[in-house]
Amino acid sequence: MVIAPPNFTAPELKAAPDSRFVSAPADGVFPDNFFPTTNLPTYVKVKGQWRMPREPRMDGGLVLDDKGELWVREGRRVKKGQLVAIGSAEDGSEGVFVHTAPFFGEGEGGGDFKFMGSEVSREKPIDYVLMAQILVAERARGGYPIWVTGPALVHSRARGDMSWFVSNGFVGALLAGNAVAVHDIEASIYGTTLGMTRTGEIAQGGHGLHMRAINMVRAAGSIAAAVKQGIIKDGIMHACVVSNVPFVLTGSIRDDGPLPDVISDMERAQDAMRAHTIKATMAVLIATALHAIATGNMLPAFVTEKDGTLRELATICVDSSEFVVSKLKDRGTHQAFGVVTNAQDFMHILRLYVERELNHARSSGPQQAQAAAR
Amino acid sequence: MVIAPPNFTAPELKAAPDSRFVSAPADGVFPDNFFPTTNLPTYVKVKGQWRMPREPRMDGGLVLDDKGELWVREGRRVKKGQLVAIGSAEDGSEGVFVHTAPFFGEGEGGGDFKFMGSEVSREKPIDYVLMAQILVAERARGGYPIWVTGPALVHSRARGDMSWFVSNGFVGALLAGNAVAVHDIEASIYGTTLGMTRTGEIAQGGHGLHMRAINMVRAAGSIAAAVKQGIIKDGIMHACVVSNVPFVLTGSIRDDGPLPDVISDMERAQDAMRAHTIKATMAVLIATALHAIATGNMLPAFVTEKDGTLRELATICVDSSEFVVSKLKDRGTHQAFGVVTNAQDFMHILRLYVERELNHARSSGPQQAQAAAR
Amino acid sequence: MVIAPPNFTAPELKAAPDSRFVSAPADGVFPDNFFPTTNLPTYVKVKGQWRMPREPRMDGGLVLDDKGELWVREGRRVKKGQLVAIGSAEDGSEGVFVHTAPFFGEGEGGGDFKFMGSEVSREKPIDYVLMAQILVAERARGGYPIWVTGPALVHSRARGDMSWFVSNGFVGALLAGNAVAVHDIEASIYGTTLGMTRTGEIAQGGHGLHMRAINMVRAAGSIAAAVKQGIIKDGIMHACVVSNVPFVLTGSIRDDGPLPDVISDMERAQDAMRAHTIKATMAVLIATALHAIATGNMLPAFVTEKDGTLRELATICVDSSEFVVSKLKDRGTHQAFGVVTNAQDFMHILRLYVERELNHARSSGPQQAQAAAR
Amino acid sequence: MVIAPPNFTAPELKAAPDSRFVSAPADGVFPDNFFPTTNLPTYVKVKGQWRMPREPRMDGGLVLDDKGELWVREGRRVKKGQLVAIGSAEDGSEGVFVHTAPFFGEGEGGGDFKFMGSEVSREKPIDYVLMAQILVAERARGGYPIWVTGPALVHSRARGDMSWFVSNGFVGALLAGNAVAVHDIEASIYGTTLGMTRTGEIAQGGHGLHMRAINMVRAAGSIAAAVKQGIIKDGIMHACVVSNVPFVLTGSIRDDGPLPDVISDMERAQDAMRAHTIKATMAVLIATALHAIATGNMLPAFVTEKDGTLRELATICVDSSEFVVSKLKDRGTHQAFGVVTNAQDFMHILRLYVERELNHARSSGPQQAQAAAR
Repeated sequence: MVIAPPNFTAPELKAAPDSRFVSAPADGVFPDNFFPTTNLPTYVKVKGQWRMPREPRMDGGLVLDDKGELWVREGRRVKKGQLVAIGSAEDGSEGVFVHTAPFFGEGEGGGDFKFMGSEVSREKPIDYVLMAQILVAERARGGYPIWVTGPALVHSRARGDMSWFVSNGFVGALLAGNAVAVHDIEASIYGTTLGMTRTGEIAQGGHGLHMRAINMVRAAGSIAAAVKQGIIKDGIMHACVVSNVPFVLTGSIRDDGPLPDVISDMERAQDAMRAHTIKATMAVLIATALHAIATGNMLPAFVTEKDGTLRELATICVDSSEFVVSKLKDRGTHQAFGVVTNAQDFMHILRLYVERELNHARSSGPQQAQAAAR
Repeated sequence: MVIAPPNFTAPELKAAPDSRFVSAPADGVFPDNFFPTTNLPTYVKVKGQWRMPREPRMDGGLVLDDKGELWVREGRRVKKGQLVAIGSAEDGSEGVFVHTAPFFGEGEGGGDFKFMGSEVSREKPIDYVLMAQILVAERARGGYPIWVTGPALVHSRARGDMSWFVSNGFVGALLAGNAVAVHDIEASIYGTTLGMTRTGEIAQGGHGLHMRAINMVRAAGSIAAAVKQGIIKDGIMHACVVSNVPFVLTGSIRDDGPLPDVISDMERAQDAMRAHTIKATMAVLIATALHAIATGNMLPAFVTEKDGTLRELATICVDSSEFVVSKLKDRGTHQAFGVVTNAQDFMHILRLYVERELNHARSSGPQQAQAAAR
Repeated sequence: MVIAPPNFTAPELKAAPDSRFVSAPADGVFPDNFFPTTNLPTYVKVKGQWRMPREPRMDGGLVLDDKGELWVREGRRVKKGQLVAIGSAEDGSEGVFVHTAPFFGEGEGGGDFKFMGSEVSREKPIDYVLMAQILVAERARGGYPIWVTGPALVHSRARGDMSWFVSNGFVGALLAGNAVAVHDIEASIYGTTLGMTRTGEIAQGGHGLHMRAINMVRAAGSIAAAVKQGIIKDGIMHACVVSNVPFVLTGSIRDDGPLPDVISDMERAQDAMRAHTIKATMAVLIATALHAIATGNMLPAFVTEKDGTLRELATICVDSSEFVVSKLKDRGTHQAFGVVTNAQDFMHILRLYVERELNHARSSGPQQAQAAAR
Repeated sequence: MVIAPPNFTAPELKAAPDSRFVSAPADGVFPDNFFPTTNLPTYVKVKGQWRMPREPRMDGGLVLDDKGELWVREGRRVKKGQLVAIGSAEDGSEGVFVHTAPFFGEGEGGGDFKFMGSEVSREKPIDYVLMAQILVAERARGGYPIWVTGPALVHSRARGDMSWFVSNGFVGALLAGNAVAVHDIEASIYGTTLGMTRTGEIAQGGHGLHMRAINMVRAAGSIAAAVKQGIIKDGIMHACVVSNVPFVLTGSIRDDGPLPDVISDMERAQDAMRAHTIKATMAVLIATALHAIATGNMLPAFVTEKDGTLRELATICVDSSEFVVSKLKDRGTHQAFGVVTNAQDFMHILRLYVERELNHARSSGPQQAQAAAR
């Protein structure tokens, strides 16, 4: 807990120049290029001596007062003409040394004081351009992206977008639970999910509609049969059946029904999922803690190319909360890139960007068009 | 805690017919129109007698076995030929009575058993069409929508979309804190927010950039002056200055700087905000608990039209978590319509829908065009 | 969207007295018993006329100025001697009428303006006294409380408390998944959960320890056998085996192993759980969305006593986030009482309160002692 | 994105022995000390050659089949007598090399594959023993712990516990906003917070009670005056006044009232807070994003002892969600130790542990007793 002082006899620190001080141009205004402080132990070289400023805090400046006293001061408190340290180097080379090592470690593995260092945060920008490019590239090279989705996807009206990805060759296999298919099929037959309409209204008697939908598919014998008989007319499962995209529906203890296609035995279900994860070249995990972690358990962090070289297996994990993404990483799927947003909005924007990427490729001549073509 | 039995001598219940039973068409399949159970006390009229089924649960059917025993059974457990109650009325009129009153109250104010009853949930669909229509209509009638935003809006790259709303007449006034303007201005000057680039990378020495940006505006004297001097070249604050959209920046205890436009005294700041809330005809609150609740405190739940009639004041509250929206309601802003999503994605899709609405209006002839025109 | 005006010809409103006004005793201070405003349409009877104040907002007072103008004013803005409306009735009977009906409905089912109306919130107090009393009462009358738990319970060191509840007769049956038992057994054998020690450190090679623990139980043949062979020495599963408390471990798609006791087939697993839910007289659902909703699906909202009377089935649902509790309610388990906290802390305090309740009963003479005794 | 292969010519890998294989003792059971796999590129030395197993995944074992093929297999799929690699070293020294460097970096700064690596998680145990020891030690050496709290603390009934810490010398200064004091004083006068009783019921007319409480204190002139006049009889503010513990109440844009002690000007308020942060030797931040980040901004990450040595400034941050703690760290307060739980429960257990620590010290003889004494 005690923090050892820096080694001021080290050559870099010994050779360091004095810090330069410049007058504040006005009350409440620092000079250009003022040194912005951190909350770490900070040493300023004044007349060849390393000194610590008083009243340390982050986001201040270093002020040398008339009496030669050194302070950390907020910009609003600086007075015109006061001397303020300038520079931005924190390694002593401009006369200010920030002692990061006791906090962040030393050497290559160590780190600087910085903001926004957390891995997963709703405050981080979402790079839809990059995700769209990866998806388009995977399709172009005949990759096998597995999509793993939770029911929120259907529940909140992203059905159309997911169906579009299935129909347009971006889905190698769909791995999900009973509920995804149940909500999707209820939506196709009754226009509701759990009795809630597309605009969020509760339908009269709506609580029974998912049970009626399940019952109709059980009567038909399978989802494919229900599609053939015209019971299921659109949506995600319809798209899978029509486009021959394989799907695995695995059971869970909370399932209603279940649908006839659901694999109820968990050992058989894991084997069925794994038949796809061993082929996966990319993974998109949306709004499901259970299935995302199940997939993460089975998924290598890398893809082995035909020539034996390895590359990272791009893994996107989308959830409304940081918790699910962090939990996935905490269960070992460290390579997951987290997107903290609503599944419905994610699907909508991702599709938009993929469509743009395809249009762009088409309009850029034969080479890219090839990439965009299936 | 004791639940009084229903009053079976009431005329409706006395007059109710026996429940109808139909044979299950196959193992694991209920007949069409089977009665789906709830978890509430349920009474089935069999030979003139109201009886409770054994082993109650939701999402089952009502099965009458060979021995005349009545059960709640999961669909997968029903056998071909077993008798299953049909119907969907829960008020006894088809021979099944679900006793909701002890749980949900009676009369108009009472309620049915239903799913998805919570007011705020990420699982609810987001009605962008409706929100876009309201915004376009407000602009058409010269309304005064106030936008209240938190820094996440800027932090996660929705700057362009927010600037678009400002520039295109959808913003009556912008109410925010120091951080929104600081991030926006750092983005204009350095291309980062808190030192993080648009794609989420951490810039070298980035932790000081927001302080440098603040210092430049303090040196210029005001945001408007910094715009005029070409220091601030784009973004939200730039759009406000250029389009003469009023903004109020209110201070907070965690402010860096602050920027010269920030009102540091909270009583004066509340007065400044209230000068806008008394004119407001709509409110859009995005990614800010502090400012959303501050605004909610000052905002009537209704608009008084010039002719004295009243209408509800449309209030949209967007946040990544249900908590902020619920808290706003818990502080009395009951009229708020909650949208649980990422602020960046919300802005992007809302703009898309508003643009569609405008295109639609333009292409639908003069009447709507007028509405779409400013 | 238009709000119809109140019916001022209704007898109550016609007969209502004028509002009483009292002078403010000092600058910035309202008179005692001032009328606190809401954000709803408000009508004040002045000289026999119902009038609306200007600049409505909540948390203000009603000020009648020198010119006879009526305003809503913040307390800090009121001046000594200004006339302020007093009273608290909002139905007009003291001269102020708040028009709640267009917002909250009319009659018994309608509501007042109020704060903290949301059903589930971390801001609500947690009534440990009541929960402890219910648990003690259930044990005293030979009830059958089912406990349904997620792995967070074990992961974060509440093992000892859960074991205590099992050993002391408060658990009719334990319903959980593979992970609860895996973490509990890893903790017994290696002192870690997923390789993390009791103080949160990551053990060297820790990621394999849960697999080694599973393998040892698989080699033993069952959890009970592993207890008998001394492999499992303490913890939750140990307590269940030793105290003959039945448990059901149901499989899931993300299971490692699984342990030999886990029921892998979901239909059989649901049947096994339901054998307990039909006997349940109370339910405690802790830190598990999957199993809580599974249980909610199967659980009636009521208990049928031996004499045929019904009472509500007390259902406590504990989770770190409002979302899981709201989701459980959204899936129909409306009777659930939500507690938003960390599972570890919940268990610790609940045990403390139950112990106090037992001590209290013991020290209060034979009658209560009987209740406290098993 | 391409992963370079390991350097198998490096001396350690060249010198590595073959992996040892042992027969599985039964179907579905690995041998003792089997090697548990990760999702990273893994190389197994067989007959002097480094080979990659097929179908990689985490949580499996390495199986060498009859044909000399190497597989990753789940334990449940292994057959009695199959050869399984044993060992736990991942650096090749036992014949298995896990290539972590492309994923986690190399050298001291690099890392192993591990679970539970995220910094802030509700799944991490909360070390109350350690926190209690730090608090007791700070009191013993005359430290200056600052407590920074949000209103949830009062709202959810932890008032008594917080008052206890104030009264018993564990609080150097209390830094909070208007709402903490308002709720606390409403609770003292009316027994409610925002009109909600201690058991969570909504009091009739409750929405005005906080305004009435504020008005009474405004009439009295200050919180201290209201305590002296017997208006405020108990609670946190009462304890501060009676025990001469300094408090700073800083204004915010959402304040009702405010109370007369609140500093409305943010620059003055920051100065007032900083007068305490420069003296702080510890910080406890509970259930407040705004004030926690404000404090973090002003707080050095270290304490300067009288003799000039430095030690880390212990910083505990408690919140219901990971987000606030992560945000605090993302704003530079990297040293914060996060506790994800409900504020009410945190306070209750922390007090319990501090009381235990004190009892323990008292009963352990003079030396510790001194520490426990004030």
